[in-house]
Amino acid sequence: MTEPAPRSAREELARKTMPTGALGRLGELAVRIAEVQRTLRPRIGRVKLLLFAADHGIAEAGVSAYPRAVTREMLRNFASGGAAACVLARSVGAELEVIDVGVDIDPVDVPRGIVVAKRRRGTGRFDLGPAMNAGERDAAFAAGVAAVARAGTVDAIALGEMGIGNTTAAAALLAALTGAAIDDCVGRGTGIDDAGLERKRTVVRAALARVGPERDPSTLLAELGGLEIAAMVGAITAAASGRRLVIVDGFIATVAALLAVKLDRSLAEHLVFAHRSAENGHRLALDALAAEPLLDLSMRLGEGTGALLAVPLLRAAADLMREMATFESAAVPDRVSP
Amino acid sequence: MTEPAPRSAREELARKTMPTGALGRLGELAVRIAEVQRTLRPRIGRVKLLLFAADHGIAEAGVSAYPRAVTREMLRNFASGGAAACVLARSVGAELEVIDVGVDIDPVDVPRGIVVAKRRRGTGRFDLGPAMNAGERDAAFAAGVAAVARAGTVDAIALGEMGIGNTTAAAALLAALTGAAIDDCVGRGTGIDDAGLERKRTVVRAALARVGPERDPSTLLAELGGLEIAAMVGAITAAASGRRLVIVDGFIATVAALLAVKLDRSLAEHLVFAHRSAENGHRLALDALAAEPLLDLSMRLGEGTGALLAVPLLRAAADLMREMATFESAAVPDRVSP
Repeated sequence: MTEPAPRSAREELARKTMPTGALGRLGELAVRIAEVQRTLRPRIGRVKLLLFAADHGIAEAGVSAYPRAVTREMLRNFASGGAAACVLARSVGAELEVIDVGVDIDPVDVPRGIVVAKRRRGTGRFDLGPAMNAGERDAAFAAGVAAVARAGTVDAIALGEMGIGNTTAAAALLAALTGAAIDDCVGRGTGIDDAGLERKRTVVRAALARVGPERDPSTLLAELGGLEIAAMVGAITAAASGRRLVIVDGFIATVAALLAVKLDRSLAEHLVFAHRSAENGHRLALDALAAEPLLDLSMRLGEGTGALLAVPLLRAAADLMREMATFESAAVPDRVSP
Repeated sequence: MTEPAPRSAREELARKTMPTGALGRLGELAVRIAEVQRTLRPRIGRVKLLLFAADHGIAEAGVSAYPRAVTREMLRNFASGGAAACVLARSVGAELEVIDVGVDIDPVDVPRGIVVAKRRRGTGRFDLGPAMNAGERDAAFAAGVAAVARAGTVDAIALGEMGIGNTTAAAALLAALTGAAIDDCVGRGTGIDDAGLERKRTVVRAALARVGPERDPSTLLAELGGLEIAAMVGAITAAASGRRLVIVDGFIATVAALLAVKLDRSLAEHLVFAHRSAENGHRLALDALAAEPLLDLSMRLGEGTGALLAVPLLRAAADLMREMATFESAAVPDRVSP
C-alpha cells in the first residue's frame, strides 16, 4: 500500500467541518503546532513551566516597589505551592520546576523542591559595571539548557521568571538591542511610583552610556542582563533545537526571546507568544519579533502566569487539528459554489 | 467562636502574594465569580455547554454561504463527536448537550444523543411574516429553561448555537433592539459573497419595515428571532436565577444575551463574555451590553466554541482566588511603603 502524498497542515485544516477560516488565530496556531511537530496529528500533552529566579544588583538602586528580599521569600512560596504560577500550573495541568539561577540566598537555605543551579548570588549593578562576566552568563545559559533536558519528552516548554529588579534589566537590554528610546522601554514593573520610575530611567541611561555602541547580543546579555534572562535564552535555544514549542508570555521572557532570535533567527518559528503584558516596553519587544500574543488580559505578574493561561489554547488548537471531522468523513455539505 | 466580618472578594484578592492589580482582567473575573457564587472560595468545576440548533426560514432567501441542509447534517456531526464544539468540550473538560429546538428534520430521524424539544421545524421567513408565534417562542424559551434544569449542579453554563441563517435573524434583532444601522448589523456570517450580503441586508430592511416601531423584546423575539435564540434567552434566565455563571461567546449568543438583559437587567451580572467574534455587528451587541470579551482570536465558528475556550480562564480565576497564598500566610514582604 503506497502512502498518499502528504497534505500540508493548512490543507488539512481546510477539510474540517467549519466555514473557511472560521477558527481564526486558533487555526493558525494549530497549523504552527503541526508544522513544528511535523505531523497532521499534533498534540499538546505534557507541558512544563520552567521558572527561573535570580536577584539583580540594580534593585539596590531603588527601582522596584518591592524589597529585594521578595525574590528569596518567593522561593518559599513556590516551594509550598501558594504562588500564582503554582496555582495556574495545577489549574491548566502543567508541570512546574523552579530553578534558582542566582537568588541571593545560601544554597543550603533554598527550600526543598527548588533546583539550585547558580554561580553567583545575583548580578552586579549594571549601571556601574557588567551585570555578570562571560563565564557566569554561560553557566546561567547552561542551566536553562539543562532544565529543558530534565523536562524530557514534553510537547511544550513554558517560560517563567521571578526576580525583583528584572524589568529594569529587560528594559536596558531592549533599548540596547533595538535602539528604542529608553523612556519607552522603561515601565512601572510591579508598580513603582514616579520617583522610582525616574530612578529606573536614570540607571538605564547610565548603563547604555557605559556599554556605548555595543550590539552583540551575547555581550549585552552579560553587560545588562539577569541570570534568569540568560537561563531563559538557554532554555529557548535547547527547546527549539528539540523541535519543542516555547510559550513566552511577558516583558522579561519576550526580551529573552528577542535575544535568542538575534542569536539564531531559526528559533522564531518555535515561539508562541501567550500574553500581552500591561508593562510598558512589551509592545516594543513584540514588535521587534513581529509577534502578536494570544491573550490580552492586562496582567503584569510574571512567573510565567500568562504562558500557563495559553496552555489550554494550544491544547485546543492541536485537538481540533487531530480530532475534528472533515466534510468527507462527516458527510456534511460544503459551501454552495458561487 | 464568632465569625470575623466577611471580607469582600476584592479585599481577598488584594491579600494575595502579587503586586496590586497584577492579575488584571483575570482578577476582575475572579471577583465576579466569587460574587456570583457568594463565596471567597469560588470554584468552576462542572461546566456544561448547551448547544441549541434550529433552522431558519430566512435561509431560503439566499443569505448563507452554506445550504440549509447543513443544520440537519451537523446534528449527525455533533452526535458522532467530530464537530468543533465536541472536540473543544473534551479539550477543556466541559460537558455537552445538543438540543434540537427547531431543526427541519423529523424527530424520529434525529441522531441518538441529541435532545429533541421542538414545536416546529424551523422558523418562517421573517421578511414576509412573523418568524414564529408567541406559543412557539415560549416553548423554545421553556426548552432552554429545561436544559438548564437537566444540567443540575453545574458551576457555569456555556451557550452554543447552530442554525444556517441565524446571523441574519440576529442582525435583524440587533437592529430592532438597538436602533443601530442595518448595514452595520449585517455581516458575512459563514462567509457569504457580496451579492449574498446585499440580499441579507434587503431581507433585514424588509423585516424591520414590517415590524415598524415595535421595541418590546418578547414581541421582537417572535417576529424576527430564531428558535435557538429563544432557547438561549430561556437558558440565560434560568441559569442566572440559579446563581450560575453564563458564558456567552459570539454574535448570536450575545444578541440573545442582550434580549435577556432587556427583559431583566439583573441578569447582566451573571454573564461572562468569552470571545469577540469577527462577525460584523458583534461589537455593536457588546457595546449595548457594555461588555468586553476575554478572548479575541478572530474566530467566527459559532457552536459555543469561543465560550468553551474561556472555560480554562474561568477555572484559573476561581483557582487563584481559592488557592493563592496571602502575604501573611506566605510571609512574603509586601510593597515598600512610600
